[in-house]
Amino acid sequence: MGNYFADNDDLRYYVEHGVDWATLVHLAEPVLPAKDGPASVAEAVASYRDILELVGQFTANQVSPHVAAIDRADLTLTQGRVRFPPQLDEVFAQIKAMGLHGMCLPRELGGMNCPLMLHFLSSELIARADVSIMTHHGFHGAIALAMLLYSVGERTTEFEPQTGTILKTRFAEQISEIIAGEAWGCMDITEPDAGSDMAQLACRAIKGADGQWRLTGQKIFITSGHGKYHFVIARTDDLPRAQWSLDGLSLFLVKTYQDAPDGSRTFFAQVERLEEKLGHHASATCSIGFNDSPAELIGATGDGFKLMLLLMNNARLGVGFEALGLCESAYRLGAAYAAERRSMGKRLDQHELIADVLDEMRTDIQGIRALAVYGAFQEEVAQRVRLREQVTGLSELELRRLKRLGRVAAAKSRRVTPLVKYLAAEKAVEISRRVLQIHGGVGYTREYGAEKLLRDALVTPIYEGTSQIQALMAMKDSLSGVLKNPQEFIRRVAQARWRSISARDPLERRVAKVQSLSLSALQHLVQKTAVGKFRGLQHRPLAEWPGTLRQSWNPKRDFAWAMLHAERLTRMLADASICVVLLKQAQAQPERRELLARYLERAEPRGRCLHDEIHNHGERLLSSLEPGRADAASDAGAGAAQ
Amino acid sequence: MGNYFADNDDLRYYVEHGVDWATLVHLAEPVLPAKDGPASVAEAVASYRDILELVGQFTANQVSPHVAAIDRADLTLTQGRVRFPPQLDEVFAQIKAMGLHGMCLPRELGGMNCPLMLHFLSSELIARADVSIMTHHGFHGAIALAMLLYSVGERTTEFEPQTGTILKTRFAEQISEIIAGEAWGCMDITEPDAGSDMAQLACRAIKGADGQWRLTGQKIFITSGHGKYHFVIARTDDLPRAQWSLDGLSLFLVKTYQDAPDGSRTFFAQVERLEEKLGHHASATCSIGFNDSPAELIGATGDGFKLMLLLMNNARLGVGFEALGLCESAYRLGAAYAAERRSMGKRLDQHELIADVLDEMRTDIQGIRALAVYGAFQEEVAQRVRLREQVTGLSELELRRLKRLGRVAAAKSRRVTPLVKYLAAEKAVEISRRVLQIHGGVGYTREYGAEKLLRDALVTPIYEGTSQIQALMAMKDSLSGVLKNPQEFIRRVAQARWRSISARDPLERRVAKVQSLSLSALQHLVQKTAVGKFRGLQHRPLAEWPGTLRQSWNPKRDFAWAMLHAERLTRMLADASICVVLLKQAQAQPERRELLARYLERAEPRGRCLHDEIHNHGERLLSSLEPGRADAASDAGAGAAQ
Repeated sequence: MGNYFADNDDLRYYVEHGVDWATLVHLAEPVLPAKDGPASVAEAVASYRDILELVGQFTANQVSPHVAAIDRADLTLTQGRVRFPPQLDEVFAQIKAMGLHGMCLPRELGGMNCPLMLHFLSSELIARADVSIMTHHGFHGAIALAMLLYSVGERTTEFEPQTGTILKTRFAEQISEIIAGEAWGCMDITEPDAGSDMAQLACRAIKGADGQWRLTGQKIFITSGHGKYHFVIARTDDLPRAQWSLDGLSLFLVKTYQDAPDGSRTFFAQVERLEEKLGHHASATCSIGFNDSPAELIGATGDGFKLMLLLMNNARLGVGFEALGLCESAYRLGAAYAAERRSMGKRLDQHELIADVLDEMRTDIQGIRALAVYGAFQEEVAQRVRLREQVTGLSELELRRLKRLGRVAAAKSRRVTPLVKYLAAEKAVEISRRVLQIHGGVGYTREYGAEKLLRDALVTPIYEGTSQIQALMAMKDSLSGVLKNPQEFIRRVAQARWRSISARDPLERRVAKVQSLSLSALQHLVQKTAVGKFRGLQHRPLAEWPGTLRQSWNPKRDFAWAMLHAERLTRMLADASICVVLLKQAQAQPERRELLARYLERAEPRGRCLHDEIHNHGERLLSSLEPGRADAASDAGAGAAQ
Repeated sequence: MGNYFADNDDLRYYVEHGVDWATLVHLAEPVLPAKDGPASVAEAVASYRDILELVGQFTANQVSPHVAAIDRADLTLTQGRVRFPPQLDEVFAQIKAMGLHGMCLPRELGGMNCPLMLHFLSSELIARADVSIMTHHGFHGAIALAMLLYSVGERTTEFEPQTGTILKTRFAEQISEIIAGEAWGCMDITEPDAGSDMAQLACRAIKGADGQWRLTGQKIFITSGHGKYHFVIARTDDLPRAQWSLDGLSLFLVKTYQDAPDGSRTFFAQVERLEEKLGHHASATCSIGFNDSPAELIGATGDGFKLMLLLMNNARLGVGFEALGLCESAYRLGAAYAAERRSMGKRLDQHELIADVLDEMRTDIQGIRALAVYGAFQEEVAQRVRLREQVTGLSELELRRLKRLGRVAAAKSRRVTPLVKYLAAEKAVEISRRVLQIHGGVGYTREYGAEKLLRDALVTPIYEGTSQIQALMAMKDSLSGVLKNPQEFIRRVAQARWRSISARDPLERRVAKVQSLSLSALQHLVQKTAVGKFRGLQHRPLAEWPGTLRQSWNPKRDFAWAMLHAERLTRMLADASICVVLLKQAQAQPERRELLARYLERAEPRGRCLHDEIHNHGERLLSSLEPGRADAASDAGAGAAQ
C-alpha cells in the first residue's frame, strides 16, 4: 500500500513544523472549541494530518493505477454531453464518496471547514497521480468557494455576529450541489481573439426589459467547461471596439443546463467542441457557445476584471501545486529507473551526470514546495481576512488587527504567486523532459510513463496565464515597487549588502548575497529603462526619480529593457525568495540547513549568470525593435534563419 | 510553390561560398572531365545546386502537405510485414522516381556520385518537412554506402588503377537493389540488456561445419528494422559473461527475407514488434528476433566494434542535420505565428520577450549549421581518402598527401561530431518547446503542428548515442588530448589568451576569449581530476604530469570531476568551435560578421556562466558518490525529494 503523503518527508515537514497552523486554525475556526468541529488547534491539525494520510493513500492506490488507461482513452462529446472513460468516472465517484469536494467549505454549508492549505497540499498529492485529474477536481471546491467569496464581496451573505457562522448566502443551493459532487463549475475568459489580453474580450451581456441579463458570444479553451456552472466575463459597455478597456467587463454566473426529474436535460449554452490536446487527457477543454443565455450578474457592472483578479492568485498557486505534484512524480520515476538500470558496470544513478541531474531535481522540488507553501499561507490569510472583515460585532481593535494582517499577507501573496506559477510550471516541463531522457529509448515509448508526464507538464506553463505573463507581472510589480518607494528600495539594497558581509551565520550571508544580486539586477533594469527615457536622470540620485518619471510614464512602452529581461529577473526573484524562506526554516529547524545549502549551491552561480546576462544583453535587440525600425526588424525575425 | 532550399539564405550561403567545393569535387571526381559526369568543378557545383533546388521544391510541396496525416496514421505489423500509410508510400515512391537513394553512390553502381555533403544538406531539407521521413530515407543510401565502405575495408572491392572506378564489389547486387529503391537496410546494435554499453551485447553468431555463420538473439529499438538488409553486431567469442569485452564482437550482414517471383516472402529473421512511440511516426522502430539466421561475416571476427565506429560519425552528423531541419521548421512556424498574432496592441514578435527568443533561435540555428557543415566536410574528406587510398597506381607523393589530408580531417571530424549531435539535438527539443509555448493554448492542441515538432524532436537526443554519451565522448577526447600532449595544450592556451588581447579584429579578440574560457574550463577539469588522484602532482607543472598519470590511470573511475561536468564542457566546446568556424567565414565574407557578432553576444555570457559552474559546483555531489558512501547517497537519490 503506497501513500503519497506518508512517503514524502519534505511534505510531512510542512504538516509538522513548516506552517504556522495556529494562525490558519484561528482564522478558519474563530471559536474554539468549534461547534461540530475541533476542540483545539492541536486537534484541528491532527485531523488535517488524517485527511492528508487518507488522500495520500487514495491517490497512490485508487488513482495512480488507472492514469495510463485514462490518458489513452478519449473524452467524447455527443449531443452536448461530454463522457469520461469509466475509470475516470470511478475516480470521481470515490472523491465524491470521500466528501473531498467540500474540504475547505464551511461546515454550515456541508463542508469540512479545513484551511485552504489542505486543498493545496492535497492538490500536490492528487497531481502526483495525475495532474489533469487534479485540474478537474479543482473545478469543484474552488468554484464553490468562489461563489461564497463573490457573494460575501457583494454583501449577499449574512453572518452570525462575532462567530461568523454563515446564516444565508446567495449561492447556497449551487454550493451544496457542488459539495455533494452533483455539479461543478468553471471560469470562462478566453475568446478566439483574446487570450492574455483581456481588454479585447468581445462576449456581450445585455439586460432585457424584464431585468434579465442575457449573454451571447463564444469562449474557448475552457477547462472543465462541460459543467453546470460557468463564471463568464462579458462586456456590458456600449463603446466602440477602439475604446474597449477592462472597465467594460462584468462577471456573470450562467447555468448551462437544467436536468428535469425524468433525466432529460435542457441546455442554455452549448459545448461546441473539445480540444484534442497533447496531454492532460482527464481534463476537458471546451469551446462554449452562449446565445442569449440567461445570466446572473455578480457584483456591479464593470467589476468583471477586478472580480476575476480575486480568484487569480488562488488559481495560479493551484497550478503551482499541481505542477509540483507532477515534478515529484517525474523525479521519483526517474530516480527509481536510475537506481535499477545498470550501464558501464554501475547503476545509472551512480553516474556523475545522472546523479547531478537527480540531485538538482530533488533540490528544485524542495525549493518550489517551500515557496508554494509560503505563498499559499499568505493567500489564505488574505482571503480569510476578507471574509472575517464582513462579520459584524468584531471589536475595533480586532478589525484593525485583521486588516493589517490581511494587507501584509495580500502583498506577499501577490509578490510570490507569479514566481510560484512560473517556476513550478517551467520545472515540471524541464524535469519531466530530463526524466524521459534518463530513460533513453524506452522513455520515448508510451510504455514507461515518462512521455505521458512530459505531455501533461507542457500545459502548465500555458494555462492560468503563460509563464511569460507571470514574468511580466512579477517584473512590473517589482519595478513599480521601486519607483513608488525608492528610499525603501535603497534601504533593502543596503541591508542585503550589509548582511551578505556581516551576518554571523554563513548561510545567511550567502542568502543575502543571492538577494543582493537580484536587487542589483532590478536596480539595473530601473536605471536602464529610466535613463533611456529621461537622459537627464542618470546624474541624479534614484530617490529623486519618481516625480520626473510619474509625469510621462507609459508602462507599455517604457518598460522595454525590463520586458526583455522579465523571465531572467523572475528566475532571480524566485531564487531569492526561496532562499529567504528556506533560511527561516533553517533558523527554526537546524535539520533544514542541509537543504538550504544544497539550494544555494545551485542558486549562486545561476544568479551570477542571470545578473551577467541582464547587464550585458539587449542593446542590439531593443534597437531592432525601436518604432522606426520595427518593420525591418520584424521582417528579418519572421523570415528565414538567414 | 515553396522551396526549402531557395527560401533559405543561410543554407544557400554554403552552396555559394561556405564550402570548399573544389576539394570535395576532386575527391569525388578524381578525373575531370569525368566520364558521364561533370566537366569541371564549376559544372559539378552547378549540378549540386540544381539537385538541392529540386529537393527543396519536392520537400516543400510534395512532402510537407502530408506529414500531419502521416503523423496521425499508425504503422502496422501484420504477418511480419510493416505497412506504411498510403501518403508515406507515395512520398517514397517519389523519392525512388527521383533517384535520390543513389545520390552519393558511384555512377558505376547506378548512383549520381555526389559528395556526401549533398546528402547532408538534403537531410536538412527533408527533415524540415518531417524528421522521421528523413530518418527512414537515410537508411537507404547510407546503408548502401556502408556496404561499399566495408567491402573496400576488407579488400573485396576492385578499383581501376588511378581513376578509382569500381570494377567489382562484394555487395554490388544489394547496393543496386537499394539504389533502385527496392530495399533498404539498418544497423542492429541495441539489445534488451545493453544500450549505450556495447560490451554487454549477447546476440551470438556461430560458424557451422558447413562454413556458414548463423546468428541468434534479439535486437531492439532498430530504426527502419523492417527492411531486407541488417548489419548486426554479434558476439563470436566463447568467453564467460564476466570476461566479455568489445573485442568479442563481430559484424554480420543478414538478409532478413527473400521474395519469390510469385510475391511470396520467406523470412530468415522476424520483426517481433513495433514500438509505440511519442512521435517520429514515419519511422518504424522494431524488435528483431534472429534464430539461426544465415549471416555473412564482414571483415574479420572481433572487428565488430571497430567497423561500427567507421559509420558512427556519419550517422551522428546525419542526426545533427536532421535535428537542424527540425529546428528550422520549428523556428519558422513560431516566427510566422508571432508575426501574425497580435496581443496588447502589437504583434507578438514585437514583444521584447518573444523577439529575444526568436532572435536566439535564429542565431543558434545558424551556428549549428556552420558547425554541422564543417563537420560534414571533414568527415567526407576522411572517408573519401580512405576509399582513394585503396586505389592502385597512385604516386607515392599523392598517397602521402592523401594520408595527411585524411588524418587531419578525421581528427577534426572526430572532435566536432559529438558537438554537432549534442547541440543540434538539444536545440531541436528546446526550440520546438519554445515554439509550442509561443503558440500558447493552441500550441498544446494537435492542430497547429507545434506539438508534433516537439514530439518528433525528443528522439533526437536519444538515438545514435544519447546527448550524455556525446558529452562523455567529447569530454574524454578533450582530456585525453591534453594528457597526451600537455605542451601542445599549454601552447593553445597561451595562443588564445594572446589573441584575445592582441588581435586587430575585435571580433577575433572576442572569439579568442570564448576559446580561452573553454580551455580554462578544460584545464580546471584536468587539474581537479589529476590532483584528486595524485596529491603530489599539483606542485609540479602540467607538462610533467603525463608520465605519472599513465602509470595508474583508470579512465572509468578517475574522470569523475570531468564526468560530472561533461555536458557543461561540451556546450563550451561547441560554442568555441562555432565561433572559430564563423570567424573564418567572417574573414572571407564580411557579410558574415553580423552573424558572428550575434552568436558571440549569446556565447560570451553563457561561457562565463558555464566556466563558473565548472569551477564551483561538484564537491558535495562527488563526495556523496564516493565508493564508501555510494549506497547511502543512492538511497537518498532514489527516494523521495525530502
